[in-house]
Amino acid sequence: MSVDVKRKIEEANAEFLKRVTSGDPVLVDVAPAGDVYPDFPEKTILHAGPPVDWQRMSGAQRGACIGSCLFEGWAGDADGAIRLLESGTIRLEPNHHHRMVGPMAGTITPSMWVWVVENRAFGNRASCRQVESRQQFGQYSSEALSGLETWRDVWAPALQTAVRSMDGLPLKPIITKALQMGDELHNRPVAASSLFANAMSIPLLKSGLPQEQIAATLGYLGGHELLFLGLSMAAAKSIADPARDIPFCTGVTAMARNGTEFGIQVSGLDGEWFTAPAPEVKGLFLPGYSEGDEGRDIGDSAITETVGWGGFVLGGAAGILSFVGGTPDEALAYSRQMRQITIGQSPDYLIPALGFEGTAVGIDIRKVVKTGVLPIIDTAMAHKEPGHPIVGAGLVRPPLECFTKALKRFAEKYKVAQ
Amino acid sequence: MSVDVKRKIEEANAEFLKRVTSGDPVLVDVAPAGDVYPDFPEKTILHAGPPVDWQRMSGAQRGACIGSCLFEGWAGDADGAIRLLESGTIRLEPNHHHRMVGPMAGTITPSMWVWVVENRAFGNRASCRQVESRQQFGQYSSEALSGLETWRDVWAPALQTAVRSMDGLPLKPIITKALQMGDELHNRPVAASSLFANAMSIPLLKSGLPQEQIAATLGYLGGHELLFLGLSMAAAKSIADPARDIPFCTGVTAMARNGTEFGIQVSGLDGEWFTAPAPEVKGLFLPGYSEGDEGRDIGDSAITETVGWGGFVLGGAAGILSFVGGTPDEALAYSRQMRQITIGQSPDYLIPALGFEGTAVGIDIRKVVKTGVLPIIDTAMAHKEPGHPIVGAGLVRPPLECFTKALKRFAEKYKVAQ
Repeated sequence: MSVDVKRKIEEANAEFLKRVTSGDPVLVDVAPAGDVYPDFPEKTILHAGPPVDWQRMSGAQRGACIGSCLFEGWAGDADGAIRLLESGTIRLEPNHHHRMVGPMAGTITPSMWVWVVENRAFGNRASCRQVESRQQFGQYSSEALSGLETWRDVWAPALQTAVRSMDGLPLKPIITKALQMGDELHNRPVAASSLFANAMSIPLLKSGLPQEQIAATLGYLGGHELLFLGLSMAAAKSIADPARDIPFCTGVTAMARNGTEFGIQVSGLDGEWFTAPAPEVKGLFLPGYSEGDEGRDIGDSAITETVGWGGFVLGGAAGILSFVGGTPDEALAYSRQMRQITIGQSPDYLIPALGFEGTAVGIDIRKVVKTGVLPIIDTAMAHKEPGHPIVGAGLVRPPLECFTKALKRFAEKYKVAQ
Repeated sequence: MSVDVKRKIEEANAEFLKRVTSGDPVLVDVAPAGDVYPDFPEKTILHAGPPVDWQRMSGAQRGACIGSCLFEGWAGDADGAIRLLESGTIRLEPNHHHRMVGPMAGTITPSMWVWVVENRAFGNRASCRQVESRQQFGQYSSEALSGLETWRDVWAPALQTAVRSMDGLPLKPIITKALQMGDELHNRPVAASSLFANAMSIPLLKSGLPQEQIAATLGYLGGHELLFLGLSMAAAKSIADPARDIPFCTGVTAMARNGTEFGIQVSGLDGEWFTAPAPEVKGLFLPGYSEGDEGRDIGDSAITETVGWGGFVLGGAAGILSFVGGTPDEALAYSRQMRQITIGQSPDYLIPALGFEGTAVGIDIRKVVKTGVLPIIDTAMAHKEPGHPIVGAGLVRPPLECFTKALKRFAEKYKVAQ
């Protein structure tokens, strides 16, 4: 590689790190996805991961799409929904193409209320849907959809009123604190969820809404330990997006899976997906499920690892090990290992168990390919068939192929002799 | 030592461990100390640590006593308060003699509202005063007392209404969770404070109190990261008290300091204090203060270490190190070291960073003397003179002399040949 190109890459990556570490995510709204983006395409389901069609779609994501059709009233029953999806009447597009992200199957439709986070350092916005443990995992029974309905009818509107009464709720202070309270903000956002519930109590109290709705919403916030994942995903997406499209940059701007394929996007190669078959997850199963039931890796939630949280800060979140397996020493080793493949470290997000060192930030595709060290990702497991809730949780690494493909394309585009 | 005596000690200590590990602390009330104990002695200030008179009292505790006299209206100014205290018109008694505990100077007077925790496994109750950073450190200006007044007039009464509307708030679930969220429940009760604030939001909302008072109280709860220390101290006291007065037991039931002396109490020697000069604290200073300003070790808060929290779980609370100093490895080593001097481990309070092992519970005076390993205690630092707020925080170990004195007395009482 010429000295000139190498210098351009280093400068681009320094700019990437600067943009990502200066991100300032602020919760500014909670609103239906169709209102947030008035250009929301008609009769479309947005989904997690790189593009995929119905024929190649994983079981869990198919189940979630069926649930979305029922939730929107586009079909009266599952068979009707399947007909619409098979025929292509309902279109499918990745969340990431619309400044959105969703956990697991990640489906977002116009009536699905989303968190809206503004990155005040750059002015861009990003959204994430509600986190729950049923429809997003592919279950579409009326019971599974009832959680979405209460979110739409009770909790989300109350949160909208409360959030709109504030001049935005800065998320960086909550995230900074939570990272010092055993959270990794992906599978374990317990502290952040609790701190967020604290922050919303007075605005909800003063919202003027019926006391019953306020109490129901406080109960939802106080009892939902995974609630903040929707906020950390929206925050991460808002932080990562300004680092897109920097020429010569080898930093990863998205890692996303649809249960069929794992895809990454790279700043210097904006707009392109580099995919490989979605990997299998190693983890622990919830009662009633066992090895062989699970589908392959799924969800946009790896946007948290993309900005340096999740698996990258496992060393500070030993409490998660009862959920994903492993030992505290392994967890610390994962976090240290991630520094081998990242551009730098955060000056603000510090991990006490690592001697208050900053989180490893900015996956560099060159370093991944050179070292063979793959990003470590915390994840949950969905069933391989439609119709089930969460079945377990564990750890996963992306296929190396995503990174080698991206690096090859990078070499072509920038005329780098490999 | 005869085999028979040794067996009796082992049986007594097993009973001690059983009682302490089965403790079930439930918050049942918030009320003025004078109402909680109608036999509250007149014109008396309860204080932290073993018994002490005004002449030997430390600067911080003197300052707090002056503040208490002003708060109760027993004197109109500091000079008047000092006259009452010097003359013995105001009596001084340890909190521990009245089923109470208090942080730092720990002063409790009849109008001081306290947390009331019932140990539902045994039916006993214990109380702790409000935690703040001024009067309890010896500051007695009207500004310092204003926090006590708002607690008395606004926050505590609102909490009383809310708590009384519940069938008690079980604290064990909050404590269990918080220990997995980087808390050690002494200097760092951040997670527990947040979880507690959430638990109170709906009862406060439904209390029927004026919205302004509810909002003020929610704001107090949500913004006071040390709030839960008052609850963890009351909980710890309620857990430790049923383990008192077990014949032949060498387990410690209290460690408490008044800034002049460090004192311990031992189950098989109930009612007696074993004291030595209070040690110096090693730690970090807040801006405006430096080494040489601090008084000696003070406070009843070591009741948290007495039941296995605080310094004993430092390994799971690396976040505290920015406040007290040290490295994550040292913190883990402290927690492992405590197992050398304790009777057993908790089956319920598990520390993720230690591979989900249970906290070390029940300090055995024999093991302390034999190993020379002293309990490690998280603590804050008060000024050596009256009139100052908190000056810093750090770590401290009790004097070995407390344990050797106790063991000598134990040998005399139980006719054990040493």
